[in-house]
Amino acid sequence: MVSFTSDNASGAAPEILEALAAANGGAAMPYGADAITARVQARLAEIFETEVAVFPVATGTAANSLSLAVMVPPYGAVYCHEAAHIQMDECGAPEFYTGGAKLVPLPGAHGKIEASVLGAAIEGAGNVHAVQPAAVSITQASEAGTVYSLAEIAGLAEVARAHGLGLHMDGARFANALVAGNHSPAELTWKSGVDALSFGATKNGALGAEAVVLFKPELAATFGYRRKRAGHLFSKMRFLSAQLEAYLRDDLWLRNARHANAMAARLSTGLAAIAGVSLSHPVEANEIFARLPEAMIADLLAQGFVFYRWGAEANCEVRLVTSFDTDPKDVDAFLAAASAAATRG
Amino acid sequence: MVSFTSDNASGAAPEILEALAAANGGAAMPYGADAITARVQARLAEIFETEVAVFPVATGTAANSLSLAVMVPPYGAVYCHEAAHIQMDECGAPEFYTGGAKLVPLPGAHGKIEASVLGAAIEGAGNVHAVQPAAVSITQASEAGTVYSLAEIAGLAEVARAHGLGLHMDGARFANALVAGNHSPAELTWKSGVDALSFGATKNGALGAEAVVLFKPELAATFGYRRKRAGHLFSKMRFLSAQLEAYLRDDLWLRNARHANAMAARLSTGLAAIAGVSLSHPVEANEIFARLPEAMIADLLAQGFVFYRWGAEANCEVRLVTSFDTDPKDVDAFLAAASAAATRG
Amino acid sequence: MVSFTSDNASGAAPEILEALAAANGGAAMPYGADAITARVQARLAEIFETEVAVFPVATGTAANSLSLAVMVPPYGAVYCHEAAHIQMDECGAPEFYTGGAKLVPLPGAHGKIEASVLGAAIEGAGNVHAVQPAAVSITQASEAGTVYSLAEIAGLAEVARAHGLGLHMDGARFANALVAGNHSPAELTWKSGVDALSFGATKNGALGAEAVVLFKPELAATFGYRRKRAGHLFSKMRFLSAQLEAYLRDDLWLRNARHANAMAARLSTGLAAIAGVSLSHPVEANEIFARLPEAMIADLLAQGFVFYRWGAEANCEVRLVTSFDTDPKDVDAFLAAASAAATRG
Amino acid sequence: MVSFTSDNASGAAPEILEALAAANGGAAMPYGADAITARVQARLAEIFETEVAVFPVATGTAANSLSLAVMVPPYGAVYCHEAAHIQMDECGAPEFYTGGAKLVPLPGAHGKIEASVLGAAIEGAGNVHAVQPAAVSITQASEAGTVYSLAEIAGLAEVARAHGLGLHMDGARFANALVAGNHSPAELTWKSGVDALSFGATKNGALGAEAVVLFKPELAATFGYRRKRAGHLFSKMRFLSAQLEAYLRDDLWLRNARHANAMAARLSTGLAAIAGVSLSHPVEANEIFARLPEAMIADLLAQGFVFYRWGAEANCEVRLVTSFDTDPKDVDAFLAAASAAATRG
Repeated sequence: MVSFTSDNASGAAPEILEALAAANGGAAMPYGADAITARVQARLAEIFETEVAVFPVATGTAANSLSLAVMVPPYGAVYCHEAAHIQMDECGAPEFYTGGAKLVPLPGAHGKIEASVLGAAIEGAGNVHAVQPAAVSITQASEAGTVYSLAEIAGLAEVARAHGLGLHMDGARFANALVAGNHSPAELTWKSGVDALSFGATKNGALGAEAVVLFKPELAATFGYRRKRAGHLFSKMRFLSAQLEAYLRDDLWLRNARHANAMAARLSTGLAAIAGVSLSHPVEANEIFARLPEAMIADLLAQGFVFYRWGAEANCEVRLVTSFDTDPKDVDAFLAAASAAATRG
Repeated sequence: MVSFTSDNASGAAPEILEALAAANGGAAMPYGADAITARVQARLAEIFETEVAVFPVATGTAANSLSLAVMVPPYGAVYCHEAAHIQMDECGAPEFYTGGAKLVPLPGAHGKIEASVLGAAIEGAGNVHAVQPAAVSITQASEAGTVYSLAEIAGLAEVARAHGLGLHMDGARFANALVAGNHSPAELTWKSGVDALSFGATKNGALGAEAVVLFKPELAATFGYRRKRAGHLFSKMRFLSAQLEAYLRDDLWLRNARHANAMAARLSTGLAAIAGVSLSHPVEANEIFARLPEAMIADLLAQGFVFYRWGAEANCEVRLVTSFDTDPKDVDAFLAAASAAATRG
Repeated sequence: MVSFTSDNASGAAPEILEALAAANGGAAMPYGADAITARVQARLAEIFETEVAVFPVATGTAANSLSLAVMVPPYGAVYCHEAAHIQMDECGAPEFYTGGAKLVPLPGAHGKIEASVLGAAIEGAGNVHAVQPAAVSITQASEAGTVYSLAEIAGLAEVARAHGLGLHMDGARFANALVAGNHSPAELTWKSGVDALSFGATKNGALGAEAVVLFKPELAATFGYRRKRAGHLFSKMRFLSAQLEAYLRDDLWLRNARHANAMAARLSTGLAAIAGVSLSHPVEANEIFARLPEAMIADLLAQGFVFYRWGAEANCEVRLVTSFDTDPKDVDAFLAAASAAATRG
Repeated sequence: MVSFTSDNASGAAPEILEALAAANGGAAMPYGADAITARVQARLAEIFETEVAVFPVATGTAANSLSLAVMVPPYGAVYCHEAAHIQMDECGAPEFYTGGAKLVPLPGAHGKIEASVLGAAIEGAGNVHAVQPAAVSITQASEAGTVYSLAEIAGLAEVARAHGLGLHMDGARFANALVAGNHSPAELTWKSGVDALSFGATKNGALGAEAVVLFKPELAATFGYRRKRAGHLFSKMRFLSAQLEAYLRDDLWLRNARHANAMAARLSTGLAAIAGVSLSHPVEANEIFARLPEAMIADLLAQGFVFYRWGAEANCEVRLVTSFDTDPKDVDAFLAAASAAATRG
């Protein structure tokens, strides 16, 4: 099966599987009191060049929701892009974890919020009838496959800070965003004003592991209770932490992300050259959104390529996601089939 | 380190680790639409000899809380033993997942609720001022290391049914309870009136995998949404399901549990023969609670044996938990050290 | 003070105050088991020409939130106008009462949702990643002072029914909407597909009394527990019910609403004739939204007329609300002042 | 009907009804921005001899739950008497308002918690598996009709403070407790360590009005949002505040409470002198719990006296509550009937 459905259709990186086996020797203190978890905390502090509080969890939804729960009261508002994962794809998890906060969806080209739009949307502070502005959440890389620049993040952070809001970054594809530019993890986060990061690993090679990275110590105070009470404190935590340790070792996370991004570039460049195909957004990480002739879509699906249509069927838009293990031959096969369809069309 | 702290201090069974590697080939549909998850569902139906709805999750707290959430309204009451994991050890997870239901803790010898105590405690049905009786939750094996008999379960189920309550079984150590007797999984659950089971695997050899097994189809209707919204729907579900599949293959789960129970029997029999030691509860699964002379406790800890004191320190009570990978030599070393301490004392 | 700030700036109708005194004789069974509450239930069944379940509460926010809570699961979605009171003015009450459901704000001219817009917005049913469509809430009269026609309500109800959604009507100004047309209470509600009505009385002459009127008996099953648990079950319920009884007696509710609407017509007709003034929406009930020259606004405020600016100050929009006790002389004084300001301007 | 069912079976005091009429002149700013509300705040500061934040609400359940919600996180624990109203009679309201905190019911003679019992029960602070101790709630006068002494309150407060817990007082019958002794409102509350008081008026002559009185300013910060979001912010707030103002004017609240307590003393003294009758608890406020011969109970009910049996019917226990408007003739009639029944028996 040649699949471009999602990076979570991939399996796990071999280095990460091996780390699980290596972590398996003998007894270890449960619930995160083990040595591997301590090392992951230290390694992330090193990578982000600052003190951080790290909480491993198994899913991106848990990472996002717990991050928001320590920033946002039940009567709070969270500003996010209208296509954000937290708004569209988590079945109301942020509302559940915060005790009923309201997400305020904002429009924005190519999956990104602009600072001016954010600034204009924030309202109601101190008004007892209105939910209280509490946090902004941005996705890096975005749901449209684009990447926020440092200036864009800093601009949003400035608005957030001016209104006393926390800034959360959903980094399910943080590695893909990072390698898309020339900035350090620190620059892309706390140095630009990010308070809490959902640091994703699952989509980029882990079996199921994410780390919440908190740059403000006060956010960590109640995190542990909230994680436990949500059922996200693993007894055999070493097996989450071992995934993260292997992910961060020898730049595996960066190498995997570079490969995925390179495959997306190869695929999107090829597609853009085919008659009748247009890209919906700049391809900056590992996701491609494109409009194809309907006949081409049908043809590709009929040949067994697996991918999702996006939005209303009449739009003829598709999403193609590459991964750390995408085979360049599969990319080329897809492009060849698309070209052939274009010719036939 | 010789550890009897908990079965979750153990690592994973080799068969289960191998299954992760085997599950890793190529792309798979995410979120449980993969082939392994389907096979686990079928296998559990076979094991329980009935139609079941199966939802893999990663932690016991998630399994318990989600099970209760589909049975209990926000204004509901859940009856459980006062020492139950859901009451004492989940930081309020059932309250979180149900939207604020009340747990009603009941006393009972050796970690078990009696039907007559349950019957006397149920009150308030139809009274608008009172939380509404909604479910009973029992732990099998119990938090005291004992096992409910079929008759005991059926007695509780009869009371529950008479009052229109659901019956949940926290089976974090279900395998240990099962192999302690001569009954089938079906007899120990739905044939005795159990509606929902948290079927544990983590403590008995998995890295982090449990299955919620629902015996009433109507309970499954909203489960998926609740699981997703709690962040417990894994994108790469195959890695949860692969753990469960290996756990159930070739009776691994039963073999592991038999070993753990045998080690507990060996340890408790040995302990009971030492002067000054008394067992707090019958040892029926893989947990031992015992009162030891204070000097003996201090001596054992000083020699590097790792285990928990239980309750107030003045009680001189300890908990010892054996596991699927407990080495008989460690048991014997512990007994030898205890005997020596008794002699010195 | 001549105030057009809101109908809740008014006091109570004398008939309703007198009813409180009349209700005060001797002991009565608490919590709604009194005779007055029973009579209100019967009277509302008569008025709506069908069986209804009636739950008196003291505020509109409570009425709305409790109505939604019995229709919408925690993982549900509620479709409403983007200016709806439940979305903008209740500090997240629907989210609190439903346990975290998501409100989906919809655009629509003059404060009303169109059926086609609703139909296009409903999505995600059966998709485990998405909140589940559960209810539609419309406001009658709307937040823009307009009134849904029977055909408009029926059109929305048809879409709702086709998707299995409940239809809630926020009737904080139900009386004003009713007397604006020629339809019966039954036609305006259940005969057009409404399942639950927040039947307002506070804004139209009560001290603080609303009735939730449920047209589907199954919605009533858990309502009582939810009301109690929210602290909205009054011990001395007779004093809520007495307000409602007086409100419904001798058509007081209709007379009060007719007066308020007539005052709004007089005020808006007068305003529309003044140079530089334009009405933002058709004036169909007792609220007027109008754009005035900035100098005129400043002038009126300076003279002591009390009203709210609406939206951004640069818009020069104001809201004027009339009430059951609005004095025509105050209307005329306001118009005279506005005319004078226009002349000066 | 001669009713001793509850003080909430009474109507309203005439002074309070009159105050509603007096408050009804003309327009007033809604939502608590009116003059009467400001005066109530000032009057309570005077009565309690300190700065206070005052939030009027309509029910005791709302007052209790909102008070706890600003003290207790979702993962918190609230210690209370096992017979406390918040535990037994509010259908889980504290759990709803706190987002799922756990109530820990404590035993205690005559409806009161002892400091030593409280101290022994507090556990789990800093343990991520346990709900976190957050508040103590005591009822004054208690559910058994007894009154905490200053020393008892101070003892509980000392334990609470030592563990960093807030201290809430459910004062649904605060006036009855106050006039039972010789202490000032300040002494009975913040001077003894109380942080938040549900100051009841409904049971003692209001139609439906309570005031949350916060002695710690930081507790007030989020109270307004929580009250609004719960639907307990009244638009025509003046009608709540007018009740409270009249309640506090000319010592009406103290006079009413003295009458109710005097009637309870008369009734209990009379009862205690009748053969076969025994009082269950000291009668210190306006509630009497007594064991009567079964024939006497049946006889009294048959003659039309209205009151509740308490607990299991076989106990032959009844509750009798007197009120601000209890007629001494009714007390005497009840005593005469009981005496006659005793003679016949």
